[in-house]
Amino acid sequence: MRTYRKELWFDIPTRRAFINITPQVDACLKESGIKEGLVLVNAMHITASVFINDDESGLHHDYEKWLEELAPHEPISRYMHNRTGEDNGDAHLKRQVMGREVVVAVTNGQLDFGPWEQIFYGEFDGRRRKRVLVKIIGD
Amino acid sequence: MRTYRKELWFDIPTRRAFINITPQVDACLKESGIKEGLVLVNAMHITASVFINDDESGLHHDYEKWLEELAPHEPISRYMHNRTGEDNGDAHLKRQVMGREVVVAVTNGQLDFGPWEQIFYGEFDGRRRKRVLVKIIGD
Amino acid sequence: MRTYRKELWFDIPTRRAFINITPQVDACLKESGIKEGLVLVNAMHITASVFINDDESGLHHDYEKWLEELAPHEPISRYMHNRTGEDNGDAHLKRQVMGREVVVAVTNGQLDFGPWEQIFYGEFDGRRRKRVLVKIIGD
Repeated sequence: MRTYRKELWFDIPTRRAFINITPQVDACLKESGIKEGLVLVNAMHITASVFINDDESGLHHDYEKWLEELAPHEPISRYMHNRTGEDNGDAHLKRQVMGREVVVAVTNGQLDFGPWEQIFYGEFDGRRRKRVLVKIIGD
Repeated sequence: MRTYRKELWFDIPTRRAFINITPQVDACLKESGIKEGLVLVNAMHITASVFINDDESGLHHDYEKWLEELAPHEPISRYMHNRTGEDNGDAHLKRQVMGREVVVAVTNGQLDFGPWEQIFYGEFDGRRRKRVLVKIIGD
Repeated sequence: MRTYRKELWFDIPTRRAFINITPQVDACLKESGIKEGLVLVNAMHITASVFINDDESGLHHDYEKWLEELAPHEPISRYMHNRTGEDNGDAHLKRQVMGREVVVAVTNGQLDFGPWEQIFYGEFDGRRRKRVLVKIIGD
C-alpha cells in the first residue's frame, strides 16, 4: 500500500467563499502515482468545509443565502461561543451543514467522478491562512 | 491491497424518494471477496445523497417534510441556480443536509453495522437515470 | 495492509450530550501500530453522530440550541416516526445535520489534525448503552 500527503493553503480575503479545488486535488493524485484507492480531502480548520457539488455561481449564491438563514452571522451575541472573544460562532454551524471532508474513489489513476462533481473549499471565517489536507492511500 | 468498483443505476419515477440499497452494496461486497477494509458508497450526481439511517416509512416521511421546510422546492424563483433553466436548486441544498457519501467498515467479509444501520439512496431530482458508486478497498 | 477494529461504548445519562472521544481514538491508533493510513470513526446507532469540531462548551451550547430549532424534540406528535412508539424522531434528524462518521488521515502514527480538530460523540437519544466503531486500515 502506498500513501501520499499534501497540505493545500488558502488565504481568502473575504469572510466567506467557495473555491473549486478539483485541479489541485487532481494534481496531488497525479503526483502520488496511485492508480487504485481512496482520496480523503478534509478541512484542517473547524470553521471551513470541503464538499462536492456543482461549479455554478448561482448555486453558490444560493448556498451563501441559505446558510445565512440557517445560522446567521449576526447578531454576534446570538452565539455563546462568541463570548470567548470570537465572532465566528456561525461559521462552526455552517461548516456542519456543508461537511468537513469528502472521500473520493481513485480508479485507473483518476478521481472517479460523476458528470458534474467538483470539490470545493468552503470558507466561513476567512481573512487568514488556513489549510486543507489531501491524503491518498492505495496502490 | 485489492479494490472493487461497481456502479448502481437508478431511474426513480418521482422527483424525490429514499431507496434502501443495503442489499446491493452487500452483494458488491460478497462479489469483491474482500474481508477487511473500507467500502465507499457515494452518489455520482450532485442532487442525490447516500446516507445511513433507519428503514422506517414514518421517518422517511419526516425527512421529506423537514427537508422541504429547510429548502423548499417552490417558488422555483427562490434559487438563482434555477435561472440556468433548471428547477432543482432545492435538490442541491437538500443533498448537503443528507450528505453525498458513506464510508463503512468491512470486517470478516461483512458490512460492519450497528443494529439498525441501513444504506439509502436519497433522490431529490429524479425522473432520469442516475448512478451510485461502490468502491471497496482492502484484503 | 493491516486493519484494526474496536468498539467504544457509551451510556449517556441525559438525552443529549457531546463527548470528546479523541483520547480513545488516539489510544486505538497507538494500539493498532498503524503508521500510515485512514481511521474511520462512526456511530453504530442512527440517533447519534460522530463529528469533528472545537472542544469549547459555549459552542456545544450553541449546537444544542440550534439543533433544537432545526428539529425540535417536542411536540412528540410532530414526527410520524414517533407513531411507532418512539419519542426520538428529532434525534434521527439532528444526527443527519451533524453526520454519522469522520474519516481521519493517519500520518507518522498520529491522527493528522489541524490545530483545533477534536472528535466528538454526539448523543441525541441517550440513557442507554450505545456504540462507536473505530476501524483503522493502513501499514
